[in-house]
Amino acid sequence: MNLDEDLEEAAGAVAVPGTAQPGVRRARAWLSRAVEPGTIDLWRYVEDVGPVDAVRRLRAGTAPDRVRSLVGARAHEDATLADLRRAERCEARFVVPEDDEWPAYPLHALTVAVAGEPAEPRHQSDRTRAPVPPMGLWVRGSARLDVVTDRSVAVVGSRASSAYGEHVAAELGHQLGERGWTVVSGGAYGIDAAAHRGALAAGVPTVAVLACGVDRVYPAAHGALFARIAESGLLVSEWPPGCAPLRHRFLVRNRLIAGLTRGTVVVEAAARSGAQATATRARTLGRPVMVVPGPVTSALSVGCHELLRDEEAGAILVTSAAHVVEAVGGIGTDLAPPVERPASPRDGLSDLAARVLDACPVRIGVGPERLASIAGCDVLEVLKVLPSLELADLVQWTGTGWRLARSERAGEG
Amino acid sequence: MNLDEDLEEAAGAVAVPGTAQPGVRRARAWLSRAVEPGTIDLWRYVEDVGPVDAVRRLRAGTAPDRVRSLVGARAHEDATLADLRRAERCEARFVVPEDDEWPAYPLHALTVAVAGEPAEPRHQSDRTRAPVPPMGLWVRGSARLDVVTDRSVAVVGSRASSAYGEHVAAELGHQLGERGWTVVSGGAYGIDAAAHRGALAAGVPTVAVLACGVDRVYPAAHGALFARIAESGLLVSEWPPGCAPLRHRFLVRNRLIAGLTRGTVVVEAAARSGAQATATRARTLGRPVMVVPGPVTSALSVGCHELLRDEEAGAILVTSAAHVVEAVGGIGTDLAPPVERPASPRDGLSDLAARVLDACPVRIGVGPERLASIAGCDVLEVLKVLPSLELADLVQWTGTGWRLARSERAGEG
Repeated sequence: MNLDEDLEEAAGAVAVPGTAQPGVRRARAWLSRAVEPGTIDLWRYVEDVGPVDAVRRLRAGTAPDRVRSLVGARAHEDATLADLRRAERCEARFVVPEDDEWPAYPLHALTVAVAGEPAEPRHQSDRTRAPVPPMGLWVRGSARLDVVTDRSVAVVGSRASSAYGEHVAAELGHQLGERGWTVVSGGAYGIDAAAHRGALAAGVPTVAVLACGVDRVYPAAHGALFARIAESGLLVSEWPPGCAPLRHRFLVRNRLIAGLTRGTVVVEAAARSGAQATATRARTLGRPVMVVPGPVTSALSVGCHELLRDEEAGAILVTSAAHVVEAVGGIGTDLAPPVERPASPRDGLSDLAARVLDACPVRIGVGPERLASIAGCDVLEVLKVLPSLELADLVQWTGTGWRLARSERAGEG
Repeated sequence: MNLDEDLEEAAGAVAVPGTAQPGVRRARAWLSRAVEPGTIDLWRYVEDVGPVDAVRRLRAGTAPDRVRSLVGARAHEDATLADLRRAERCEARFVVPEDDEWPAYPLHALTVAVAGEPAEPRHQSDRTRAPVPPMGLWVRGSARLDVVTDRSVAVVGSRASSAYGEHVAAELGHQLGERGWTVVSGGAYGIDAAAHRGALAAGVPTVAVLACGVDRVYPAAHGALFARIAESGLLVSEWPPGCAPLRHRFLVRNRLIAGLTRGTVVVEAAARSGAQATATRARTLGRPVMVVPGPVTSALSVGCHELLRDEEAGAILVTSAAHVVEAVGGIGTDLAPPVERPASPRDGLSDLAARVLDACPVRIGVGPERLASIAGCDVLEVLKVLPSLELADLVQWTGTGWRLARSERAGEG
C-alpha cells in the first residue's frame, strides 16, 4: 500500500489497545530512517502531533522549518515497506511505543530527561549525548522486549579487553543470569561479548543493543554469537535493517543501553572510553553506575578507577553479581551477603586474657608467676583468666606449667 | 644511679628546654616497661601528676588503686638502666614528649582522641584499639623522629602478599620517596617490606614501627632490611629493648603507624586483616584512608574492596603516588595531574560534521550528494562541513570524490 494512503487511513482509525495500527508502525518506521535517532526536536514534534500526522506534514512540507530541515532531502523517499519486509525476512519486527511490548517503564527516564532539554537547539545537548527516547525499536529474536528488559543490567567495557576483564564479565553475566537478571550489552568484541556469552552459558536470554540494523552482523566475527542471542534473547536497534554501524551511532546507541536497564556495570575501561560514556548516561537517568576495579598496573582499568575516584560520578565499586544485584535490586530482597570473616576464639578475649595468652610460651610450660611478670599483671589475675583460656582451647597445662595450645602456635596476627 | 634518687633529683630540677632531664627520661622508660602501651588510665595519671611523680607514687604505693593495679607486681622492679644501656649498645635512644625531637604535631590527634574516652574503664575502648599517645618512643637509626615523620604516609598491607601487591607497594614507596614523602610501615613481610624497600631504592629514609624492641629483628629474615632502614631512617617502638613481638602488641602498635602519619594507604588486605584495622585507626584520627584496588579475583584485595565499598569508611581509591600526595598533601600544591586522555581531532566536531565524516567511505571517494543521503542531511550542509573536515585531516579528495583520510581508516570508537 502507498505510504500516504496508509497514513490517511491510520489518521482516521480507532486505536486498538495493545498493538499499534499498521499506519502508526509504518509512520514510526519512516521516521526511524528519515532522521537519525537522538534528535530532540523531532521527538518533541512527534509527541506533539503524533507519529502519523508528523510524517504526513513532513512529507507535505507543512511541518515547522526546524523539523523539516532535519529530514532534508529524505522527505520524499519511502523505504518503509522494504524495511518492514527486510525485517520480516530475518525474523525481526518493529516495536513501537503504541505496542504493549514497549518497555515503557524503563524508558520513561528518557522521557523525563528530555523534558529538561532547552527549546533552543543551540543550547540542547549534542545529539550523541541527548537523552531522547527512541521512535521505535527494531528487534530480532524470540524474547518479548518488555519482559526481557524488566530485570536487566547493562554490562559494558572495553573492546580491547584483557583476559582478566573477560573472565570477570563472563562470570558476572553467568551469575546475573542465574539470579534471574538479563544482561544487556552492545554485542561488541571484548567485555560485551564475554558478558553475553556468560549469560548464554547460564542458559538465560541476553540482549544486544546494536548501532546498526539487526540484520547486520557487526563485528562480522559475531555471526554465531548474534544467532545464539536471537535464539532466546533479542538483538535491538533504533536503526532500520541494513543500516551501517557508523561511528557516531555507537554513542547515540549508548543511551539506550543505559535507558533499558536498571543500572550499568563497567568492567574494564581505558582512560578514554565509550564505557565511561555509557556510565555517564546511566547516572544522568538516575540509574546506579557500578564499576569493577582491576589491577592499577592495567591500562584497561584506568577508566574504571577514574570513575570510582570521581565523587560526582557516585559510582559504586562491585566485585560480584551479588554486589550488582544489591545495587539494582529491590531493597531487602537482594542484599549481598557480607564478606565472610573467619571467627577466631581470640575475638572475645578481654585485654587481660589476651595479654596472658600472649605471655604463654610455645613449648615449655611456665607457672602463673612467670606469666604474671611477662603479662604485666598480678598472679591472681592470671589464675582468674587461665581456666577460660583453657576452655577455649587456647592454652594447655603440661603437667608442670602452661603453654599455648597446638592450634595457637603459628602466626602472629 | 638508683632510680628513686634519680627521680627525686628530677622532681626538684629546673626544666631545660629542648631535651628531657635524665630523671624524666628514666621515669618514662620505667613506665614504658611497667605497663603495656595503650593503657588509658595510666596515660591520664601521667598527664595529671607528671611522669616523675607518677613513678614515685606507683613505687611508693601511694598512687590510686586503679593505676596501681595496672603495674601490679612490677612496681618493685627496675630495669631502666639496663634498658637505656641496651638501647645505647644498638645505637638506639629513648625519645620522650619533653624532647624537641618528639613528633608532637602528628601525635596530637591521639591526645585529642583519648580525651573522648569515658572515665569508667569498663566503657573505655579495648586497649588494643584505644587511641592513647605513647609514653615515649625507643628509636634506632640516624634520622630525627620529628623531621622524618613530618611529611609521612603509612603504607600497609598483607604479609602474605601477591607479586602484584608487592610491585604496587614498592612503586608507591619509591614514588612517594622521590616526592619527598617518608613511607612509614610495620617492617613485616609482604607489603610492609616492599614499601620500605621501594623507599630505600629511591635513596630516602623510611620508618618501621615495630611491635617489639628496636634491638630485635622480627621477622628474623629482616635483619639486613632493618639495618638498611636504620642507616638513613628509623626503627621505632613503644616497647623497651628486648621486648618480644607478642601478638596483641601488633594491634596496639597499629595506632602509632596511623598516628605518626598524614594518611594510611592499604595496598593488599584479605577479608580479615590488620591492614583494615590500621585504616580504621587512621580514620578515627581524621587522617585520610587510601586504598589500592586490585583484581576482584584476588583474595588479597577483598579487604581493600570492602573498605572502598563501605561508605562509612570514607576510603579514597588511589592508584599512584600522585593520588596519595593529592589526598595528604597541601591543597593546591600537591594536586594529582588528571589522567591523560589522548585528544582526537573528532572531539570538536559538530553533530552534522560527525555524520558526514561517518558517511565517508574508506576506499573509493563519493560525491557530496551520496554523502548527504547517507548522513541524512542536505547537500548544502555537506558542502559546508567538508572543508573543515579536510583541514582537520579527517577526509581527503580523491579527484573523483571524498573518502576518509588515512589516519581515520581504523577502528570505530
